[in-house]
Amino acid sequence: MNEQDSRADDSGDLGMDEGSARVQELLEVGTRIFAEKGYEGTSMRDIAVAAGVSKALLYHHFVSKDEIYARISFNSTRNLYDFVEARIPETGTASEKIHAFMTAAASFFAEHRSSWIAASTAFWTDPDRHRMARRVARRRLFEQRLRDLIREGVESGEFREVDPAAAGRLILSGINWMQRWFDPSKSLTAEEIVTQYADIILNGLTRR
Amino acid sequence: MNEQDSRADDSGDLGMDEGSARVQELLEVGTRIFAEKGYEGTSMRDIAVAAGVSKALLYHHFVSKDEIYARISFNSTRNLYDFVEARIPETGTASEKIHAFMTAAASFFAEHRSSWIAASTAFWTDPDRHRMARRVARRRLFEQRLRDLIREGVESGEFREVDPAAAGRLILSGINWMQRWFDPSKSLTAEEIVTQYADIILNGLTRR
Repeated sequence: MNEQDSRADDSGDLGMDEGSARVQELLEVGTRIFAEKGYEGTSMRDIAVAAGVSKALLYHHFVSKDEIYARISFNSTRNLYDFVEARIPETGTASEKIHAFMTAAASFFAEHRSSWIAASTAFWTDPDRHRMARRVARRRLFEQRLRDLIREGVESGEFREVDPAAAGRLILSGINWMQRWFDPSKSLTAEEIVTQYADIILNGLTRR
Repeated sequence: MNEQDSRADDSGDLGMDEGSARVQELLEVGTRIFAEKGYEGTSMRDIAVAAGVSKALLYHHFVSKDEIYARISFNSTRNLYDFVEARIPETGTASEKIHAFMTAAASFFAEHRSSWIAASTAFWTDPDRHRMARRVARRRLFEQRLRDLIREGVESGEFREVDPAAAGRLILSGINWMQRWFDPSKSLTAEEIVTQYADIILNGLTRR
């Protein structure tokens, strides 16, 4: 195991040693600042000021802003997976399961918009290739879960013979693109919006 | 008319005085650099170096990097509209027209990926609110055209009673999100990807 691997593992899957309330709080402040200013525009100083702590204290908990960013986005990806998984019913049609997947993802998005955006941005900007690869793998599990639900519907004859990868990409595009236009002060909730998408897509998948 | 309005109009709809080949060339270099480095990460110096011209020459043609960025993204939005409009057949079903809209948008995206991304980013970062409002209006025309095609299908009975705004958003989400993952070196073209999306969505819209 090389030094980089060892460092990544010591950091506890990039999220297991976040027990302390102080660390949690700093990560939450970091999430907000990164979402407001972007990765490039955010400094350790910005986070310290917003959290009302000294830079020295911030550096006591985190090696760099990079570490804060990585933890936020890694946690967000992991939490999204767990949140959605817990809301997919064990029985029912593939349509029902996919609808549950979509509304759960929308709820998570609406609740954790800042870290969702941070996680999404970190995908393309994380300078640590090793850590990025692990986060991409986690995200792939999430996408894979959705494709499996679509495949289940194709195999049972509930859906037409569609490519689960294409259908999964369309569903996730609808959800992901919300980060660019969704306004929580407007009348429709995130769940209502993806329910409209689900109506169209699931109708489009269903065999007649 | 206040000073800001007057300035915006004098700039020729932000794109009419781009006649000279030199200006066109500088805008193309700018498009590439902005796409690579983002708005914040790009300086006038970067663009001058990449174009092989002096900063003085660059400032002779453009007041600021902001002007370059605005022209690129405004042109991109306008060109997208014209490109797609020219490819929508005058006759045929709503499905055929929407499929044409989608593949035309995908072709434009694949051909002009850098300026598409610049235009998309500029939506949210342009510090000139007036200019941004005009660009948003232009983009809205594009979205409106798609909604009108969907409404046409609903009114003729070809489509179910869906909300044209929701269906239009889903279609544009699929196309727009491609900027985050599409890899032209992979096997599927942008047109093939949106054709998969069109198959699912148009099936989902069609009345049985």
